Amino acid sequence: MRLIRSISVMNAYRLALLREGVRIGLVPTMGALHQGHRTLIRTARLACDAVVVSVFVNPTQFGPHEDFSRYPRQLKQDTAMCRDEGVDVVFVPSQEAMYPSSFQTGVTAQAVSQRWEGAHRPTHFGGVATVVTKLLNIVRPHIAFFGQKDYQQVVVVRRLVADLNVGTLIVSCPTVRDPDGLAMSSRNVYLTAAQRRAAPILYRALRAGETAILKGSRDAARVRHTVLMKLADEPLVQIDYVSVCDPDSLEPLTRIIGKVVLLGAIRLGPVRLIDNLLVKAKIKGRRAKSR
Amino acid sequence: MRLIRSISVMNAYRLALLREGVRIGLVPTMGALHQGHRTLIRTARLACDAVVVSVFVNPTQFGPHEDFSRYPRQLKQDTAMCRDEGVDVVFVPSQEAMYPSSFQTGVTAQAVSQRWEGAHRPTHFGGVATVVTKLLNIVRPHIAFFGQKDYQQVVVVRRLVADLNVGTLIVSCPTVRDPDGLAMSSRNVYLTAAQRRAAPILYRALRAGETAILKGSRDAARVRHTVLMKLADEPLVQIDYVSVCDPDSLEPLTRIIGKVVLLGAIRLGPVRLIDNLLVKAKIKGRRAKSR
Repeated sequence: MRLIRSISVMNAYRLALLREGVRIGLVPTMGALHQGHRTLIRTARLACDAVVVSVFVNPTQFGPHEDFSRYPRQLKQDTAMCRDEGVDVVFVPSQEAMYPSSFQTGVTAQAVSQRWEGAHRPTHFGGVATVVTKLLNIVRPHIAFFGQKDYQQVVVVRRLVADLNVGTLIVSCPTVRDPDGLAMSSRNVYLTAAQRRAAPILYRALRAGETAILKGSRDAARVRHTVLMKLADEPLVQIDYVSVCDPDSLEPLTRIIGKVVLLGAIRLGPVRLIDNLLVKAKIKGRRAKSR
Repeated sequence: MRLIRSISVMNAYRLALLREGVRIGLVPTMGALHQGHRTLIRTARLACDAVVVSVFVNPTQFGPHEDFSRYPRQLKQDTAMCRDEGVDVVFVPSQEAMYPSSFQTGVTAQAVSQRWEGAHRPTHFGGVATVVTKLLNIVRPHIAFFGQKDYQQVVVVRRLVADLNVGTLIVSCPTVRDPDGLAMSSRNVYLTAAQRRAAPILYRALRAGETAILKGSRDAARVRHTVLMKLADEPLVQIDYVSVCDPDSLEPLTRIIGKVVLLGAIRLGPVRLIDNLLVKAKIKGRRAKSR
């Protein structure tokens, strides 16, 4: 396994791989790798000949009062996991190389960045779209792998890749969860013991919404209400949003038809948690119950 | 020569070329090709193995009251010139393929887009940056060739290519002029006979500024005044701006040190003309005069 810190070395390495006809997979991360990342890496290894894991805590996707400075950094453990998983390259560019003082270009996917996380973190998706564009241009992977946990991020990335003709396939991998249902996240380390005990309520509440849909509910407001009621069971929770949306446009729905995504974001003290479930409503007369 | 209209065919063709180790040059144009484009194509042929000329009148770089609908379109003549010049591919994507209804992503180079043309055409460089990013991603050229006439455009493109790690070399080719000095432009056809006679004043005025610098003037305000005075000779001219700038940041200068760019934009009736000169101020004691 190679640890590459220089953008131009990464570029040269990528060119050499492409000349040999090697199929490159990229797993872009901010480090602090957990089992969710491990699944992304394993999926990449199955689909590609060479796997590049980028580790870059991207400052531009953090808001001014967010956790950029205390975001967990543990390159040693991260490279150990990557070596373990047969990763070919760990790419760790410096902040100075990614954002020299002359840097001034931004990429924005407009509509899909506005709602939900975008409303709560107004500069977040601009930062994500820009850094992902940069990483895709540097590594030029055939496929890039993202976790479904950050659902809106995947939608933004798919959008910019299509709109800017980037030519990378974006694969979203299912969310990996702790046994009690909490979606894995590098930020879960911020939770106190009490908050950690309360945290799985988000998944349980989304599952309640899913169950309502699978049982035949087609009224988005009622499904949303089901999720909100479940969240209300947990006194530590403050709700940022719960929504039932179109899975591509992320526009909120009134009627549930076909595939929808349930999005939820809560706060437990200062810690924000997000999660989501993709649900396919069966056509009427073929409800889950009746099968 | 191949005429390619489909983005995916262009993509496949590019991939095949790259696999063979062919060095691709791209000349992005809006068509209505003139001698300036011919020079870009010839430069590309000298530097690259395969030359792609894109012809796309990009709607997003026109302002709402600009000349998008009447911009000259003459694909037959354009392809004839390209065949003549040994171009390998003329790439003519449709508006629908470039901007499907779901399209929503924008690329912006902030600071260098604000002044001069950006101030007069607020959405222009966003449109340019986005379409150039798309074309560079579709064709993935080793080198892309732009005319120096659109100086600020070249600065914006260089900026986004560096900032987004696009990995294409941007080459700016000297402005090609009519014998009387008027910079060639597809929009020159809009000029009436009287306007056409007045048009070379822009080049002559910039040359007067250049002469002042080469003779030792280091006061940007005085050089600018020289250009403005010259322009005032021509009663048909309305001045949009004249500036003496840093050639990379496009910030206006007070003192002239080293390389500077003189930018000018005028209107002759409804027709806007822009032009520029790059000037290298000799170090003191080695003035042009004394050589």
